[in-house]
Amino acid sequence: MRAQALPTAVDSKRYLALSGGVGGAKLAAGLAQALPAESLVVAVNIGDDFEHLGLTICPDLDTVLYTLAGVVHPQQGWGRADESFGVLEELRRLDGDSWFSLGDRDIALHLLRRQLLAQGLSLSQVSAELAHRLGVTVTVLPVSDQPVRTTVHTDQGSLAFQDYFVRLRCEPVLRGLEFKGAAQARLAPALRELLASPELAGVIICPSNPYLSLAPMLAITELRESLRALRAPVLAVSPIVAGDAIKGPTAKIMRELGVQPHAGVIAELYADFVDAVIIDEADAELAGTDSRFVVAPTVMQTLDQKTTLARHCIALAEKLRS
Amino acid sequence: MRAQALPTAVDSKRYLALSGGVGGAKLAAGLAQALPAESLVVAVNIGDDFEHLGLTICPDLDTVLYTLAGVVHPQQGWGRADESFGVLEELRRLDGDSWFSLGDRDIALHLLRRQLLAQGLSLSQVSAELAHRLGVTVTVLPVSDQPVRTTVHTDQGSLAFQDYFVRLRCEPVLRGLEFKGAAQARLAPALRELLASPELAGVIICPSNPYLSLAPMLAITELRESLRALRAPVLAVSPIVAGDAIKGPTAKIMRELGVQPHAGVIAELYADFVDAVIIDEADAELAGTDSRFVVAPTVMQTLDQKTTLARHCIALAEKLRS
Repeated sequence: MRAQALPTAVDSKRYLALSGGVGGAKLAAGLAQALPAESLVVAVNIGDDFEHLGLTICPDLDTVLYTLAGVVHPQQGWGRADESFGVLEELRRLDGDSWFSLGDRDIALHLLRRQLLAQGLSLSQVSAELAHRLGVTVTVLPVSDQPVRTTVHTDQGSLAFQDYFVRLRCEPVLRGLEFKGAAQARLAPALRELLASPELAGVIICPSNPYLSLAPMLAITELRESLRALRAPVLAVSPIVAGDAIKGPTAKIMRELGVQPHAGVIAELYADFVDAVIIDEADAELAGTDSRFVVAPTVMQTLDQKTTLARHCIALAEKLRS
Repeated sequence: MRAQALPTAVDSKRYLALSGGVGGAKLAAGLAQALPAESLVVAVNIGDDFEHLGLTICPDLDTVLYTLAGVVHPQQGWGRADESFGVLEELRRLDGDSWFSLGDRDIALHLLRRQLLAQGLSLSQVSAELAHRLGVTVTVLPVSDQPVRTTVHTDQGSLAFQDYFVRLRCEPVLRGLEFKGAAQARLAPALRELLASPELAGVIICPSNPYLSLAPMLAITELRESLRALRAPVLAVSPIVAGDAIKGPTAKIMRELGVQPHAGVIAELYADFVDAVIIDEADAELAGTDSRFVVAPTVMQTLDQKTTLARHCIALAEKLRS
């Protein structure tokens, strides 16, 4: 039949990745290798965003952009490679706020973002423009154009996210989290459109911190409800490997919240919408305990490892769709 | 008599210097050598101030502060010594606005200023704070806390000051100047107080560009009227030496405005309030043409030359008061 000779719908399949900072950005980089640019949308946490020195700083958006642009600091996984700190050093001399490490290249991006926001562009539009300027062809957008701000309730009182995360190095004992603005926030328009699109082939929840990076996104009612109602498969990659986090304070936070850190916890946290959870080979013994668990190598050091995990995610989504 | 043994009023004499950027800052540095810190107030032009990349940049205030702090770029006379340009280089890569040269140390000051302004401080208060952070003990303040913005009418149309001055390097032919906001601007509180104080021993108009740096200040009605009514002497140092400016576009601008550049022109521009005009030794032949002309060495390359000229100014003010 003639219609069958036409390109199939497969060609316009699109994947949505939900990402926080470093860990999420690694899988996003793998997905960017495994998929054509027009087939990948990365929606990023904004709960860490804050105003500092009159700049609007979006740490997770920047980490994803820098990673996809290939200019991220290779050891840190955030910030810029070949960075200088002329501004920060002088701020220190002037007794200004210097607790948040801002490199000069990073500040250039923040100044540009500020200027674009002041022109009336939404954070989505600004992120698209910054992606373009950095040569990133994948769509990277904030989960919402309205602010969501993570507040951390700790044994030292309630703290703005960066106060807790950077200034106090996650040392206070966490007692609870609050995502201010999340209940009212609407999804970024392009994200809403994608979630309603028949082209959506799957949602991949990246191995970012489920409490600090993904919870602020999933606290947006519209996102959680969209995921619950979604026909396309939703899969998550566990950030916990062999009872600990690859990086960052995930395991510490889980213990403080009274949760035993294990690879399967994601299945409970996302129970209302997740179709499959990829757990690491190191946790293969858990595979039988939940039909949603799928074992794959999840540790991503090299670009090959990132791309391999991305291909596992895509193959799993395809399998779940069929 | 016992009262005569007390310190005389001489001890609390205070001088006001009106300054633009480079040329004015040099004399301010000399005055800071010649006078105790508490006896000198430098009121600075704000007509060049502008918003750029979301920062409030005050070029003349910064030049005066950097000069008095001893951290100014020694050859340029503006900007910082030992400056780096990490932010600007990245802005250029990101196709951002990079026509206005901003060094990293300079940006640190602008970020700090922005933060202090955002806290609700006036520009005077911010300038006092920045002076303190830079270790400047002399009082440096903007002529007004309200914005005054110089617009340059040229053969290429009307231009914002920095567009004309920096982006187009003063190349367009100047047809007129407009100082937006000047008619409504009030003097900075400490400046108003000083002008009304019996302690004011003299006003020294520094050898800055009379059209671009001093005219925006003198366009503030309250300043010009205060100078006219002042009992203390007002003296000016001519920026024109031997028919040309030491530095910058003063002479070019004068020719474009149909004014012959000569040392005495200041006496005409400030005719309604100036008591004496210091002209350079190179222009000694003019001395007899106007009783207000006083000859002194006005070229300031070394700190000694700056201090010598400052002492000439102070001695002249003392003579005019007696």
